[in-house]
Amino acid sequence: MDIKINFNRLKEDIKALSQIGRDPNSGITRPSYSKTDLEAQEWLKEKIKGADLLLRQDGAGNIFGRLDGKGKTIMVGSHIDTVINGGMFDGSVGVLSGLECLRRIKEEGLQLSKPLEVASFVDEEGNLVGDFLGSRAFLGLLERETLEKGLTQFGIPFIEILKGTEFTIDSIMEAHQQRPDLEAFLEIHIEQGPVLETENKTIGIVDCIAGKHYRWCSFLGKANHAGTTPLELRHDAFLGLADFALKSTQYVATKHYGNMITIGKVSVKPGAFSIVPGQADFSFEYRSSSKETLQELEKSLMALAESIASTRGLKFTSKIMDKTDPVPIPPRIINIMKEECEKLGYPFMMLPSGAGHDAQIVASVAEPGMIFIPCVDGISHSPLEMIKWEDLEKGANLLLHVLLKIAS
Amino acid sequence: MDIKINFNRLKEDIKALSQIGRDPNSGITRPSYSKTDLEAQEWLKEKIKGADLLLRQDGAGNIFGRLDGKGKTIMVGSHIDTVINGGMFDGSVGVLSGLECLRRIKEEGLQLSKPLEVASFVDEEGNLVGDFLGSRAFLGLLERETLEKGLTQFGIPFIEILKGTEFTIDSIMEAHQQRPDLEAFLEIHIEQGPVLETENKTIGIVDCIAGKHYRWCSFLGKANHAGTTPLELRHDAFLGLADFALKSTQYVATKHYGNMITIGKVSVKPGAFSIVPGQADFSFEYRSSSKETLQELEKSLMALAESIASTRGLKFTSKIMDKTDPVPIPPRIINIMKEECEKLGYPFMMLPSGAGHDAQIVASVAEPGMIFIPCVDGISHSPLEMIKWEDLEKGANLLLHVLLKIAS
Repeated sequence: MDIKINFNRLKEDIKALSQIGRDPNSGITRPSYSKTDLEAQEWLKEKIKGADLLLRQDGAGNIFGRLDGKGKTIMVGSHIDTVINGGMFDGSVGVLSGLECLRRIKEEGLQLSKPLEVASFVDEEGNLVGDFLGSRAFLGLLERETLEKGLTQFGIPFIEILKGTEFTIDSIMEAHQQRPDLEAFLEIHIEQGPVLETENKTIGIVDCIAGKHYRWCSFLGKANHAGTTPLELRHDAFLGLADFALKSTQYVATKHYGNMITIGKVSVKPGAFSIVPGQADFSFEYRSSSKETLQELEKSLMALAESIASTRGLKFTSKIMDKTDPVPIPPRIINIMKEECEKLGYPFMMLPSGAGHDAQIVASVAEPGMIFIPCVDGISHSPLEMIKWEDLEKGANLLLHVLLKIAS
Repeated sequence: MDIKINFNRLKEDIKALSQIGRDPNSGITRPSYSKTDLEAQEWLKEKIKGADLLLRQDGAGNIFGRLDGKGKTIMVGSHIDTVINGGMFDGSVGVLSGLECLRRIKEEGLQLSKPLEVASFVDEEGNLVGDFLGSRAFLGLLERETLEKGLTQFGIPFIEILKGTEFTIDSIMEAHQQRPDLEAFLEIHIEQGPVLETENKTIGIVDCIAGKHYRWCSFLGKANHAGTTPLELRHDAFLGLADFALKSTQYVATKHYGNMITIGKVSVKPGAFSIVPGQADFSFEYRSSSKETLQELEKSLMALAESIASTRGLKFTSKIMDKTDPVPIPPRIINIMKEECEKLGYPFMMLPSGAGHDAQIVASVAEPGMIFIPCVDGISHSPLEMIKWEDLEKGANLLLHVLLKIAS
């Protein structure tokens, strides 16, 4: 079938949506349930109605456009909320490419055997009460207490934020009751990393969405006068952290190549020019597409930290803050993506998704699939976020063909 | 001569002074010109008058007690101000031992050939406008602008602090005009480090007061998504700092053993769990008793940082914040201290002073000499600051005998 998306229409949609919540000096700010987000929601609903799709919005604010059929639904989507001062492609590409696919199928009058839906999930970016509010509501994974007591990153209680909307804690908690039975959930997204650009590939077929461990750790030593305490008598907590940072990174780079390890947040106490650090607190996260590797990393890296602490006369403490398991993409979906990519003649590669996505959440009730397109310099969550438009055209065409293949 | 200090009197003085500004839960807080410090100043002035010494207070608030004589003055002293939540020995030991020495000489009716003075300098701890306010005023080293525009560490302008006192910027700037000609300045102080305790020596004869360089440095890389940026494509500024911290410490420990190097303050940006650090700012200080070593350290360590930055795809920047030269103690003073120590039979060792002291400032107009006594676990600037009283007794006796030797 040589059906193609209407690329100019898709491009115009992305540009139009990017005007909502845009500050010319600092990117796009459209956190879910904000005035700009509600405006974007209305815009999207009009687009869905304009495409003659069946519009539905659930109690969490997730928006769906349906092309009806029999059996389980094939869903395609992402999110239209943004981080503060974000870019115009993260999320929007997925929702609007999905919309464009359904629009073209409808226009062509193609009769598919299964129903299709485009979905836009709220607060994927976690501005309010943790990541993936919308898709977790869609799955019924939320705890009422989180919503009732949650404080948003803006310092305002979540319940106060809700007051500006038509949504309530009850309606969010009940959103999942409106969920249709799903067969698959497909998402196209910018890579948010530099791999496709570095490898000069237009398409990334995701083979796994990585799992991760978030930890908050400390090396504890002894604060001492920096002028009078000889190096060999110090218990310098920061040097313990420095040693751990280098050795743990080296360990992952050599023994578990391809996995991620990051120390992103550091606090040294007491934190003065002339005092040897008595305490070094730090965030520590590691990610892997393999659950076994995650477990192995947990064991080895904590043992490494203990060993460094012991060698240096320090103590080490660590607390797990969050833990998610990897989500492997089913071979059936991967194979369809590969075949359609080859038919279309697009250069592709397999890669894991290091970032989390709505597809990861929906994966518990649907076969997930993800397509990545490159973003310039790997930059996202920034006004500098950029793509090559021709990459998007290919990515959206691939999505259309994969959708047709699965739905027919 | 077998004259000895009156140790019980000295001990009672130290205990009495430690009651001023003491919080039973958190040590002693007596920053210069505070209500507690002014109370301590009055207490000290009464003690000096009670000892029948000639009392003088200069325009900076430095207090002197004089035993008159002919020729250049031999001065002995330290400071009675403290850090916030400090201990009872740092500084006080020097002023009150000096007072006790002069008191005993007066009591014994000894006729010395030279005048003696005990001195108490304000704000040695640098709570107001940098270290050594009092001794710098005494030397005429202050700049008027520093005083006029200076903001204290309490967030209050220095000129506001002065309003609660009888001192003015004019009187501080003129304080040095009242300085007598000096021959020598002697100071006994707790070591503020663990060397004497570790080496099991009662007395430390300081052979040099270390010089130091204070720098504020940064490694600059690129902030990136921690889930999607492969390790080999990162420009992780924190790993640059970790590498530098370990290699620079190793370099000093092996190539320049006995010198100090410290990274005490660290700030990582943007500072989030899931973002690879794009910037790592840190304080960096190194100290040495040798000016040549300081210059060599400056050259080698900056080159090391540049080389690490280059290897890791980072940039390195560095700004000098403060620089002081080492002050060697003259052999004449060291030899007298050694001889008197041997006569008294006290176990001693030579060591450099890594910390700065008033003696370092006064050294430009007088031969400096310093005696250290051990402090428990090397702790100072803390309510836990402690000494063995018998060490103080020996230290103060040594001071007395050194003073007599120089003055006779």
